[in-house]
Amino acid sequence: MPRFDDSDFATNLTEARSNGDASPSTTAGGGSMNIPGDGRRGSDLVIEVPATRSSISDASQFMHSLSLSPSMRDHRGSRNSFGTSLPIPRSPRSPNVFRTRFPSLVTTDDRGGISGAVSREILASQVQDMAKEKVEAAKNMAFAFDIDGVLAHGNNLIPEAREALKMLNGDNELGIKIPYILLTNGGGKTEESRCEQLSEILGVPISTSQFIQSHTPMSALSEYYETVLVVGGEGFKSRDAAEAYGFKHVYTPKDILAWDPTISPWRHFTEEDLVGASPTDFSKVKFDAILVFADSRDYATDMQIIMDLLLAENGQLLTRAKDPISSRIPIYFSHGDLVMPTDHKGPPRMTQGAFRIGVEAMYKGLTGVDLERVIYGKPELATYKYADEVLKAWMEEIHNETRIPENIYMIGDNPASDIIGGNMYDWNTCLVRTGVFQGKEGENDPNSPASMGSFNHVLDAVKAGVRKELGKDFKFKWNEKVNPVLHEEGISAVE
Amino acid sequence: MPRFDDSDFATNLTEARSNGDASPSTTAGGGSMNIPGDGRRGSDLVIEVPATRSSISDASQFMHSLSLSPSMRDHRGSRNSFGTSLPIPRSPRSPNVFRTRFPSLVTTDDRGGISGAVSREILASQVQDMAKEKVEAAKNMAFAFDIDGVLAHGNNLIPEAREALKMLNGDNELGIKIPYILLTNGGGKTEESRCEQLSEILGVPISTSQFIQSHTPMSALSEYYETVLVVGGEGFKSRDAAEAYGFKHVYTPKDILAWDPTISPWRHFTEEDLVGASPTDFSKVKFDAILVFADSRDYATDMQIIMDLLLAENGQLLTRAKDPISSRIPIYFSHGDLVMPTDHKGPPRMTQGAFRIGVEAMYKGLTGVDLERVIYGKPELATYKYADEVLKAWMEEIHNETRIPENIYMIGDNPASDIIGGNMYDWNTCLVRTGVFQGKEGENDPNSPASMGSFNHVLDAVKAGVRKELGKDFKFKWNEKVNPVLHEEGISAVE
Repeated sequence: MPRFDDSDFATNLTEARSNGDASPSTTAGGGSMNIPGDGRRGSDLVIEVPATRSSISDASQFMHSLSLSPSMRDHRGSRNSFGTSLPIPRSPRSPNVFRTRFPSLVTTDDRGGISGAVSREILASQVQDMAKEKVEAAKNMAFAFDIDGVLAHGNNLIPEAREALKMLNGDNELGIKIPYILLTNGGGKTEESRCEQLSEILGVPISTSQFIQSHTPMSALSEYYETVLVVGGEGFKSRDAAEAYGFKHVYTPKDILAWDPTISPWRHFTEEDLVGASPTDFSKVKFDAILVFADSRDYATDMQIIMDLLLAENGQLLTRAKDPISSRIPIYFSHGDLVMPTDHKGPPRMTQGAFRIGVEAMYKGLTGVDLERVIYGKPELATYKYADEVLKAWMEEIHNETRIPENIYMIGDNPASDIIGGNMYDWNTCLVRTGVFQGKEGENDPNSPASMGSFNHVLDAVKAGVRKELGKDFKFKWNEKVNPVLHEEGISAVE
Repeated sequence: MPRFDDSDFATNLTEARSNGDASPSTTAGGGSMNIPGDGRRGSDLVIEVPATRSSISDASQFMHSLSLSPSMRDHRGSRNSFGTSLPIPRSPRSPNVFRTRFPSLVTTDDRGGISGAVSREILASQVQDMAKEKVEAAKNMAFAFDIDGVLAHGNNLIPEAREALKMLNGDNELGIKIPYILLTNGGGKTEESRCEQLSEILGVPISTSQFIQSHTPMSALSEYYETVLVVGGEGFKSRDAAEAYGFKHVYTPKDILAWDPTISPWRHFTEEDLVGASPTDFSKVKFDAILVFADSRDYATDMQIIMDLLLAENGQLLTRAKDPISSRIPIYFSHGDLVMPTDHKGPPRMTQGAFRIGVEAMYKGLTGVDLERVIYGKPELATYKYADEVLKAWMEEIHNETRIPENIYMIGDNPASDIIGGNMYDWNTCLVRTGVFQGKEGENDPNSPASMGSFNHVLDAVKAGVRKELGKDFKFKWNEKVNPVLHEEGISAVE
């Protein structure tokens, strides 16, 4: 059974805070605040999972000594009105979650590049009848893949990924589908468009039913908030995603910029910026929440507008709250990764986590109080709870068995999110060397070692997991010439 | 005599840090580290003024608990190789400081809009002979003006400013020049071009000899560093300024972006970006220091490149230092203001101080150690020490007396820099309500009250200062018809 022991976090928090900082806020822990409004609102559609990280960002006194006023300091330790629970959809079928189109098995196999798909299905079922134990084991395991740095670099496939996925899609000695989901901290567009893009890159069909990106579980927040600022991503694609989640009024910083370019003093506002923007009289709009879905494409503008809304009276631009705490609207970040792999030949580039840390510090600098915020994505518990729901639904889809496989393998490149998250959720973890992790062969991450160790690439990691569950001699190719009856003695598949 | 008591800071620091943070770094104080290289290098051209703020940025453990590795933490409390001294030019005449062109008195008066300049000079000298005491007092006082929010908003004159400056330029009952300098935390272009722009806006000539912008004293750093990254400002104007200061090899983030656009993953690199850029093989360049001169126009790129250089082995891009402390190159910021007044109708906008806080926090997030950095500009002691040099030289220029007036009036809109700095340096301080300070009539800033209180605009503040030194009945207009001999009974000037 998956276990998520709070003490795991306690330990880490202590570690991280063992530098003499004894301020109350740093030891606040997860807290137990409630989400505003009628507690019962949407309560049958969502599960409220307690946060594993404190909502206190806990920046300290690093700014100019005069930027702290006593009136601000008095509010330290007080709590905001919004919660540290992370709502997630009760099931991937919740009304607010995007529709799913699952490609038929035949399509799958066709696009998987395996010939004679249908006849193969029949042959495979015969083979599977002969090996019930292996079949049970195959249905009792699953893989969760990170994407960037594991399956692909941006739009470029990591070659071993295709073979790994084809094998899991049935190109193995049993011709059986071994369930897998994609669990990425990426985001910034709808699940549909991302899955279409991935199917192209990977050369195997990816269904939205097996896909979770950083902000997918945040769809549950549409039960709580109507008018939101969505930050990050390309153009207005994050707005499309938020609207697909059911948020009623979705705005982006570019919409606000189109209303008043002076809000970002150094930004050169062009006619292009108006294309697709929905300028409104934002002096009359009251924002309920800020949702950061992906990397900001304009730090200065986004940081300024986020700050304006956090300091405003009830999320209304051009206003300043007398009490920055009680009237502050909540802010949610879709993940906490500090760096990400890109095609840059130098070290990994900074991503949303670094942006967030900057925002937290600027807020502390301007107000003297710690910003409360909620962070989704790996390694957050809420993301793994939701992953269970998706796995269950996916099992039903491919094997007609609505249950969570017992032996799950997380394969990722980022120790700080993929591995720590998987370890804490009692998954087996494999670290690949094709992304953020820069360790050498045989090395593991010192801070969050992968339970299965590190691998050259995703295919080696998948093989290690399959061999552990289905035996060292498991064949990673479907053998057309196999003889179901004489299976054991059949012409062995070429690996 | 100006006095700058360390205890002033101690008090403020304690206040600001009275939130339970007991980590050693927060109490590190100014420190006494030396600037690298031969101590005597350029020692006769510069004065090393001890820093009044600790070089430890002192961000705390607010980031994901796993982003701190013990190996990093071991380095806490260790010191970087560069110093917390702020070098400033020994005098405004130092070779490395821009040349100065002082407009003649006649030009002054002409452009000041006063007719019959020359004949007036004669008449004025007669009048001044009759009022030696007032003349002495007039020569023993001086004004230091902040610019943005005091004399102008961006390129728009604040109307009362022109009358105030004309009066100080000789349009007063004595026809005498009352010395004033401009002391701004602005920057991003050469002193010459800024002064030309200001002369246009203000309608009175501003000489570089009476002008100090945030990075002017940083010209002294060219004695220590040859190859520098200069950040902020419009286009490549900061590069021009740095080259005028004598730095041998000056590069900007745009030069680096032109070399390798992938360094900033989300930046859309255009052909325009190449115009004026000097792409070089930066994998071979070793930077000696990072100088932030003005507001970044591209936060994401500048923050990433600053981080790359801070984490690099001896300031060489594409490398990562094993020990982030010992091989880190120094970073200097030209001022610490968090916000600035702009033409936005909402609250003040974030500026370099907020950017710096973001960088400090990101650095702490990535390394687990506090970033050491040096901050110039108001209210930093070094800036006021340098202001003394400029005032002395300006007195010589307009009154042939090389001395610092005793009664100096700082007129500014930002309590956190203009006022606190002036107060700490024993200047009289006037807070105007035309900029950052939003207080109502009669109100003063609670944290750093101006010694003279707050004023509607700069003219009222100047009049208050002059009346204090030259008497309540002092006339703020030159009277053409004045009779030097019967001065007291002469037709009184219209105020």
